[in-house]
Amino acid sequence: MSTEHQAGLSDPEQQVLDRIERARRRKPKVREERITLAHGSGGKATQTLVEAVFLEAFRNELLEPLEDGAELPVDGHRLAFTTDSFVVSPLFFPGGDIGDLAVNGTVNDLAVSGATPRYLSAGFLLEEGFPVADLTRIVESMAAAARAAGVQVVTGDTKVVQKGKADGCYINTSGVGVLATGHRLGIGTPRPGDAVLVSGPIGDHGVTVMLARGELDIDSDVVSDTAPVHGLVADLLAAVPEVRALRDATRGGVATVLNEIARAAEVAVVVDEAAVPVRAEVRGASELLGIDPLYVACEGRIVAVVPGEHAEAALAAMRSHPLGEQAALIGRVGDDPPGLVLLNTTFGGTRIVDLLVGDPLPRIC
Amino acid sequence: MSTEHQAGLSDPEQQVLDRIERARRRKPKVREERITLAHGSGGKATQTLVEAVFLEAFRNELLEPLEDGAELPVDGHRLAFTTDSFVVSPLFFPGGDIGDLAVNGTVNDLAVSGATPRYLSAGFLLEEGFPVADLTRIVESMAAAARAAGVQVVTGDTKVVQKGKADGCYINTSGVGVLATGHRLGIGTPRPGDAVLVSGPIGDHGVTVMLARGELDIDSDVVSDTAPVHGLVADLLAAVPEVRALRDATRGGVATVLNEIARAAEVAVVVDEAAVPVRAEVRGASELLGIDPLYVACEGRIVAVVPGEHAEAALAAMRSHPLGEQAALIGRVGDDPPGLVLLNTTFGGTRIVDLLVGDPLPRIC
Repeated sequence: MSTEHQAGLSDPEQQVLDRIERARRRKPKVREERITLAHGSGGKATQTLVEAVFLEAFRNELLEPLEDGAELPVDGHRLAFTTDSFVVSPLFFPGGDIGDLAVNGTVNDLAVSGATPRYLSAGFLLEEGFPVADLTRIVESMAAAARAAGVQVVTGDTKVVQKGKADGCYINTSGVGVLATGHRLGIGTPRPGDAVLVSGPIGDHGVTVMLARGELDIDSDVVSDTAPVHGLVADLLAAVPEVRALRDATRGGVATVLNEIARAAEVAVVVDEAAVPVRAEVRGASELLGIDPLYVACEGRIVAVVPGEHAEAALAAMRSHPLGEQAALIGRVGDDPPGLVLLNTTFGGTRIVDLLVGDPLPRIC
Repeated sequence: MSTEHQAGLSDPEQQVLDRIERARRRKPKVREERITLAHGSGGKATQTLVEAVFLEAFRNELLEPLEDGAELPVDGHRLAFTTDSFVVSPLFFPGGDIGDLAVNGTVNDLAVSGATPRYLSAGFLLEEGFPVADLTRIVESMAAAARAAGVQVVTGDTKVVQKGKADGCYINTSGVGVLATGHRLGIGTPRPGDAVLVSGPIGDHGVTVMLARGELDIDSDVVSDTAPVHGLVADLLAAVPEVRALRDATRGGVATVLNEIARAAEVAVVVDEAAVPVRAEVRGASELLGIDPLYVACEGRIVAVVPGEHAEAALAAMRSHPLGEQAALIGRVGDDPPGLVLLNTTFGGTRIVDLLVGDPLPRIC
């Protein structure tokens, strides 16, 4: 990225650009001495931790793309492999629970890698004293979600720690899927002129979980959007094989996904705020929480980047699937400033949508 | 299993047999209302939880063998898939730490499934406030263990929970390996006349971790046996393709593995106590802890069941590998009483070695 002044940016924005550029030239380093909640946010601190600690130690060509799933070459076949731990609080919330979240989350990571989800593992980490009835309910919810997604839970593990050393129930699911030959998706592939789509209203899951904690005195009908997106993805890829990149917008929301894409592809992503579908209740709750809905987690929504000329076809394919009825074209890929996400606001201004530094919504998934 | 009196058993032992038989006829049911540490022990409570809750909900033909790894049919190839969470306390102990333990544990689950370990995922669950330096040390230890085992960590995830909602660092590793065509290992396959071998002294890991907690005032030179056994397994299978079953003796130790084999294969396993290799320090510490070394976890030892006529060849193959120098033939498979493990003690008696009900050594892995 050039440090020259970018057209159309104010001085404070130019300062942000310069700061980001300076940061990029440094080798990533975790400055904090201790882990903070922000390291689990999916935002800037997570990125630094991953690059400075995990990538540095594990460096290999399969890990480095830092996609949601790794592509495994096995005897000429292409498999996808992914892992995710779930620590959502509370464990049960309107529209779902940690069980279906854990299944759908890993199913979706496989799906947006372009893979057909096939097999899951389930690792339970339980706190001494956790009600067996709650565990049974969670496991039944996982089983139902697995059936709905057409995957099998084929291997598992259970550990129990002393009271006070966990918070009821944490679940890790890892998944194996089969990649179709042909489709090569990757967040590094978007090009200027591409269109950016989301499959439906954003932020439902995050707001639902926050409200379920009862910290805000709001009554709301909003429910989590947790759902398996593999069918939606399959329909989209069948209609538009030219799709460049897919992501499910979980921790850190759509804004974080777009930042990852802008950075990996060295492109600008320009979002039209008015085009982003957000339910009125989610917008209202987000305002009370002091957070932009663009950063609020979804658990059944995808972001798709497609060549501009295929935008309409992609939108039509998504809208004809039950999970994509409210799909929308929310922005375009540009070339300048590379690595950044810009938002054309409903007020007519333009601002940078950066990765978050802190974690306004911890333990949302 | 017959409820007729078994030859050579005393009345109390017959009562144990009768109790076990009655338990088997019932559908498994978790009687406790809340999870206890015993549910994570690998013993009887874990088995009930797995059968009553997990197997009941997830039931499928790949999960039901309840092996250490599931066999995945993928486009005509056979892959192995396994998962394990690690909650060991303390995180660092003589001979290893949670990092190499997490890599070796999953490598070993793949190896004893007869697979060549290839790819691992790493899911970190961190407590707010955990020192970044400790995390870095753990991750570097994982990377070194992965290099030593010839596997790549290809995908990962990090979650952070509030202070007091975890205990520093928990790690889940899942693994994918490639199964050689030809070898069909399974704990249901042992037959009367087979020989039972262990690859070296048992209980080093469990005793090391217990002593590292400082709860016993013992000075000891014993270190964890944590190691990747895939090379040992490969040498054994090359020398004796007829191997019937392999297991790594982790949680619950050799006794638990032998019980799983006896039960799955509906055979008796008769162990000669005097033949079981146990370091003097491990024996001494086990006595102070009030636990039979047969129940103490190893993290680099395997139990192998081979046809009797191949016992010597299997022993020779294990002994020619650095990790198997002290391998020993510790017992035989019989037909009566099916489903039970009997120990011929050094005092000349015979007793049943049952699955443990409680968990004398929580958070050993």
